[in-house]
Amino acid sequence: MNFLEERIIKDGIVKPGNVLKVDGFLNHQIDVALLDQMGLEFKRRFANKTVTKILTIEASGIGIACMVARHFGVPVVFAKKSKSVNIDGDMYIAEVESFTHKCKNQVIVSKKFLSSNDHVLIIDDFLANGCALQGLIAITESAGATVEGIGIAIEKGFQIGGTVIRNLGYQLESLAIVDSMDSENGTIKFKEQNNG
Amino acid sequence: MNFLEERIIKDGIVKPGNVLKVDGFLNHQIDVALLDQMGLEFKRRFANKTVTKILTIEASGIGIACMVARHFGVPVVFAKKSKSVNIDGDMYIAEVESFTHKCKNQVIVSKKFLSSNDHVLIIDDFLANGCALQGLIAITESAGATVEGIGIAIEKGFQIGGTVIRNLGYQLESLAIVDSMDSENGTIKFKEQNNG
Repeated sequence: MNFLEERIIKDGIVKPGNVLKVDGFLNHQIDVALLDQMGLEFKRRFANKTVTKILTIEASGIGIACMVARHFGVPVVFAKKSKSVNIDGDMYIAEVESFTHKCKNQVIVSKKFLSSNDHVLIIDDFLANGCALQGLIAITESAGATVEGIGIAIEKGFQIGGTVIRNLGYQLESLAIVDSMDSENGTIKFKEQNNG
Repeated sequence: MNFLEERIIKDGIVKPGNVLKVDGFLNHQIDVALLDQMGLEFKRRFANKTVTKILTIEASGIGIACMVARHFGVPVVFAKKSKSVNIDGDMYIAEVESFTHKCKNQVIVSKKFLSSNDHVLIIDDFLANGCALQGLIAITESAGATVEGIGIAIEKGFQIGGTVIRNLGYQLESLAIVDSMDSENGTIKFKEQNNG
């Protein structure tokens, strides 16, 4: 197990309905030293990539993105989520439908901050069905920028998002891929990865 | 002028209605090296304080809070904003009314992440009328924790928030205090501070 998998085992809480709570260290209270270690690991996994921007989405992606960005020496751009905004020509907007919540959301980035010269590493905390991530990819493509890779803290390997993104040919690196969880006894099984 | 004031002069944009746009480096695109410098400066200004938690509010406070937290070696807790949630006994909830937007919002923190043993440094990007900040103070007090200080990137000195907070006796440190702005010629005047 790697450092993030160990931390999930130690402090993650499995709830019924395949819910994994990591609010003690990742998305409500944040262990900044852990995020820094994640940044270092993403830098290692994407060492052969030229990256000019880290792209994430509010709110819980921002902390990770900032700590990752330190290791790449590039700025973060975070997309905003909105149920509906007045369309402004200066924004890239992706409509994404949540498979789980049956609602539509907009993912929005100002055109000032992504251009065709950008090489983008997309960072987020969770990947399940991948709706938010699909919006971030769509926005990067709209800008004519290049998606160099996608770094995720925790992927739910039993949901479809990761498969879809890998099928599309993107380099997707998830630090922990949960294969299965059991809320009755609190166990979590991770997919084995060879990232040595 | 300090480093943040210089950056605001260089890249901030003054819009009519006393709006200061700093989305190029602070709250949409984020200059992580600048945030790190801010973290170092807050560490200097609160050097005599014991701090166990950095408290902020989603979304644009999170990046700054994470970079500040590195310098204090403590975790970040970010409050969530919501128009209305089903009251859950496990949450601290502050109702805050927006003076500007004439609406009520809830500021929410899980009780797991703030206790009476905590010494809290509150961090946010902007201070104007201070509604969100008042919610963060209320939540810290509800937890029986101590507000050790408040660190703000940009304070609008011509709005009431800063005066209120200082009148209440809190150590409020704003890295840049805007005294006045003129959208016609794009000029910004800062309040002189003696923080040497």
